[in-house]
Amino acid sequence: MKLITMDQAKEYLGQEISIGAWVTNKRSSGKIAFLQLRDGAHFFQGIVMKNDVGEELFDVAKSLTQETSLIVKGIIQEDTRSKLGYELLVTGIEVVGESQDYPITPKEHGTDFLMDHRHLWLRSSRQHAIMKIRNEIIRATYEFFNQEGFIKVDPPILTGSAPEGTTELFHTKYFDEEAYLSQSGQLYMEAAAMAFGKVFSFGPTFRAEKSKTRRHLIEFWMMEPEMAFMHQDQSLEVQEKYVAYLVQSVLDNCDIYLDTLERDKELLKEYTQLPYERISYDDAVALLNANGFDDIAWGDDFGSPHETFIANQSQRPIFILNYPKAIKPFYMKEHPDRPEVVLCADMIAPEGYGEIIGGSEREVDYQRLSEQIEKFGLSKEDYSWYLDLRKYGSVPHSGFGLGLERMVTWISGTEHIRESIPFPRLLNRIYP
Amino acid sequence: MKLITMDQAKEYLGQEISIGAWVTNKRSSGKIAFLQLRDGAHFFQGIVMKNDVGEELFDVAKSLTQETSLIVKGIIQEDTRSKLGYELLVTGIEVVGESQDYPITPKEHGTDFLMDHRHLWLRSSRQHAIMKIRNEIIRATYEFFNQEGFIKVDPPILTGSAPEGTTELFHTKYFDEEAYLSQSGQLYMEAAAMAFGKVFSFGPTFRAEKSKTRRHLIEFWMMEPEMAFMHQDQSLEVQEKYVAYLVQSVLDNCDIYLDTLERDKELLKEYTQLPYERISYDDAVALLNANGFDDIAWGDDFGSPHETFIANQSQRPIFILNYPKAIKPFYMKEHPDRPEVVLCADMIAPEGYGEIIGGSEREVDYQRLSEQIEKFGLSKEDYSWYLDLRKYGSVPHSGFGLGLERMVTWISGTEHIRESIPFPRLLNRIYP
Ligand SMILES: [Mg+2]
Ligand SMILES: [Mg+2]
Repeated sequence: MKLITMDQAKEYLGQEISIGAWVTNKRSSGKIAFLQLRDGAHFFQGIVMKNDVGEELFDVAKSLTQETSLIVKGIIQEDTRSKLGYELLVTGIEVVGESQDYPITPKEHGTDFLMDHRHLWLRSSRQHAIMKIRNEIIRATYEFFNQEGFIKVDPPILTGSAPEGTTELFHTKYFDEEAYLSQSGQLYMEAAAMAFGKVFSFGPTFRAEKSKTRRHLIEFWMMEPEMAFMHQDQSLEVQEKYVAYLVQSVLDNCDIYLDTLERDKELLKEYTQLPYERISYDDAVALLNANGFDDIAWGDDFGSPHETFIANQSQRPIFILNYPKAIKPFYMKEHPDRPEVVLCADMIAPEGYGEIIGGSEREVDYQRLSEQIEKFGLSKEDYSWYLDLRKYGSVPHSGFGLGLERMVTWISGTEHIRESIPFPRLLNRIYP
Repeated sequence: MKLITMDQAKEYLGQEISIGAWVTNKRSSGKIAFLQLRDGAHFFQGIVMKNDVGEELFDVAKSLTQETSLIVKGIIQEDTRSKLGYELLVTGIEVVGESQDYPITPKEHGTDFLMDHRHLWLRSSRQHAIMKIRNEIIRATYEFFNQEGFIKVDPPILTGSAPEGTTELFHTKYFDEEAYLSQSGQLYMEAAAMAFGKVFSFGPTFRAEKSKTRRHLIEFWMMEPEMAFMHQDQSLEVQEKYVAYLVQSVLDNCDIYLDTLERDKELLKEYTQLPYERISYDDAVALLNANGFDDIAWGDDFGSPHETFIANQSQRPIFILNYPKAIKPFYMKEHPDRPEVVLCADMIAPEGYGEIIGGSEREVDYQRLSEQIEKFGLSKEDYSWYLDLRKYGSVPHSGFGLGLERMVTWISGTEHIRESIPFPRLLNRIYP
C-alpha cells in the first residue's frame, strides 16, 4: 500500500489515503478524539469520530501513547484553523510500533536531559522546525552558487599542515604520519579557484576549543566560497547577495516553521534588503570609545559586546572592514595604502547573533606571502604547494566563510547554537 | 571592469568583452597566433591577428608562457569547429601574473609527480572535466532528493562509538575522551528518519584501510539516504531511480566534459533505462560456480572478479540481493523466511567499476537488535540511543550509501579513483 505524507495533502483533498505517522499527543471528549500526529514532513491533526469508526477503533485511538507509530487511514480535509491547512478524518488505525514511557513529555526538561536524548528530541516540533530551516539554508546555498556559476569543491578534512597554528586542532595518526582535522578548507579552495574560477565548499570543520559559549561548537559546518579575479569589494557584494538570498528562501519556503518558532518575520524581511552597511574597523573602534567602551583600543579584536553594539547601528547585518594585520591570519592581503591593515571584513548579524561571515582578499605576491609564512612560524615545506599558486599565474582572488550553524541560529531565532545542528559536539558532549 | 566567463559567451556574441584567464598553450604561424586559454569555466581559443592588434601586442601574445594569467579583451565569435562553439578574437592582453617553468608540461608525467602537484594538476582539461562531472553529480543529488521530499541531515563526524568494529578507524583525543572519525553516518540517519521521514546525508567518511587498490580512498564522500516506513524492495526502486537520474543529469549538462574524457555516451544512455536487474546472492554464487569460479562458495563475500562477472550479465548496473547474515553488519534485517540471509543489496556498476551502493532494510525489533549488538561484541551502552529507536515507535525503514568517488570514477570512465576527488588521501599520501 502506498503511503503519502502531509506535504502532498493538497493533491489528495477529499480522498482516502494512508500515512505513516507517530502520535505526539491526543485528547478526547465524549465521542470525538483528536490525535496530534507527525509524519516527518509535518505535524497535523487526526480526528476520530466514534459514530463513524465504531467503538473498537475509537478505543484504540483513545489508548494510543506518545510516539506510538502507526499507519493511519483517513480522508484529507481542509482545516482553516491550522497553519498547515489540512487535517485527517480518520477511518482506520494500524499500530506499527509501540511506545511505553517516552522520556520526553510535554512538561519541561533540563538541557542536559534533552541533549542526552537528542536522537529523540529531534522529533519535537521546535527541533523539527529548526532542522527544516537548516535544510532550506543548505538547499538555497547550492541553488545560489549554481546560479552564480560556482562549482562545489570538497577540500580534504585530513591535512598534514594547519592554516592557523596547531593549538586548537584535533590530531590523529595517519598511518606513519601525523595528521590534523581541518579547521578550514580555504587554502585548498584557493587552489581550486585557480582551476575552476568560482568554487564553494560545504563541509564539516573542527575546532578543539575549550570554550563554552552559546556561539561555539566543536564540530561545525562551513560554506567557503573562493573566487578568482575578484577583489574584496566585489566579494562583499556576493556575500550580502548570498545572505539575503538565504533569508528570502527561508521566508518563501519555511513560513510554517518560522511560526512554530515564533520568529519575527518583519525582522527577517528587513535582512533581505540590500546593501548592508559597511563600517571600517577604525570607525568602529572610535564609535565604541565615544560610547563608553573603554575596554577596546585600536589593535584589539572585538568581543561579543563590541560586535553587538556595532551591529545595533543598523537594522541589517553590517560589515566591519579592514582589521589590523596583526590580529588576522597570514594569508590576508595587505591594504595597498595602509600596511597596518588587511583587506578583510566580518559580517556581523543583528540581534546580538555575532559574526556569521569572515572573509578577505588573499595575498597574491609570492615574496610577501613567503615572509608572512615565516613570520607566523609556519613550515615553508608544508605550504610550498600553496606558494605555488603565487608562482604560476597568480591572480587577485577573494573568498569568505559562512558558519552554517550561526546562520541557522540567527535565522531561526534560537538562543543557543547547540540546537542548530542535528547532533551537536560540545565540550564534554560527544553523545549521542 | 566587469569580467565575463566563457559559459556566458552566447549572451555576448559579437560584443567586445574581457575575461580573466590562464594560458594553457599557444602556437603561431606568420601573422596569426592561437592562444589556448582557460577561464575556470571552459577551455577556449583566442585568436590574435598581427594586422589588427599591431606588432607590440602580437609580440606579447607570442611570448606568453604556460599558466601565465591575464585579462584578455576581445570579441566573442562563433567557432563551429570547437565543441564549445565560441572563440575570442583578441583585441587586448593585460598580463596579471607571470609563470616561469610551470611543472606540468604537455609531455607525459608519472603519477607520483602529478599527485605531488595535485593543486596544479586540477587545472588540466582532463581533471577539470572530471571535477565538473563530480560537481554535476553533487548538484543533481540535491535536486533529486529535494524533489522526492527528503531533507539533508548532517550526521556527526566525531563519534564515541563505532558501527562496524574499530580496526579501520581513525582515532583522536576528544578532550578527555576517545573519539573516532565516522565511517558512516547511517545510525544517526536512522534517528533522523524517525524525526523527518526521508533524509539524506552528504559528507566525508574515513577508513584507515591499508589497502592500495584503484577503488579505495582513505577519505571519501558518501550520500546516505534513509527512509522511514519503507521496505527494502521500495528502497531498491529509489536507488535505481536516483542513479539513473545522476547519469541523465551528467548526459544533459556535461556533454563537453564527457567528450574531453572520450567517454562512450551510448553506454551512459543505457544506464538511464530502468529497471536494473536483480539477482539473488544465491543465484550469483551458483552462476559463478557454473562458470568456472571455484574460489567462491555460499557464505563467502565477493571479490572484484566475481562482482565484474556478475555485472557483465547485464548492460546496466545490477543488484545482488540478500547476502549471508554472517558477512553483513549487525543492523541489517533478517529475511523473514530465511534467517541465514539479510534484506540487503549491493548495486554493482558495469564495466568492472564494482560496488557503488550498499543498502539494506534495518532491524526494527528491539530484542533481536540487542542480541545482534551483543553477538558482534559491541557496547550496549554506546548503542543505547540507537536501541531507543526500536523502543519508541519503531517503524520499517531502509537506507543505502552511495560512494561519490566510485560514482564519479564510473561515470567519467577513469581508471583510478584517485582522480575523482580534488585532493585524494591515500595510503602514504596526505599532501598537498
Ligand atoms: Mg571576528
Ligand atoms: Mg560488497
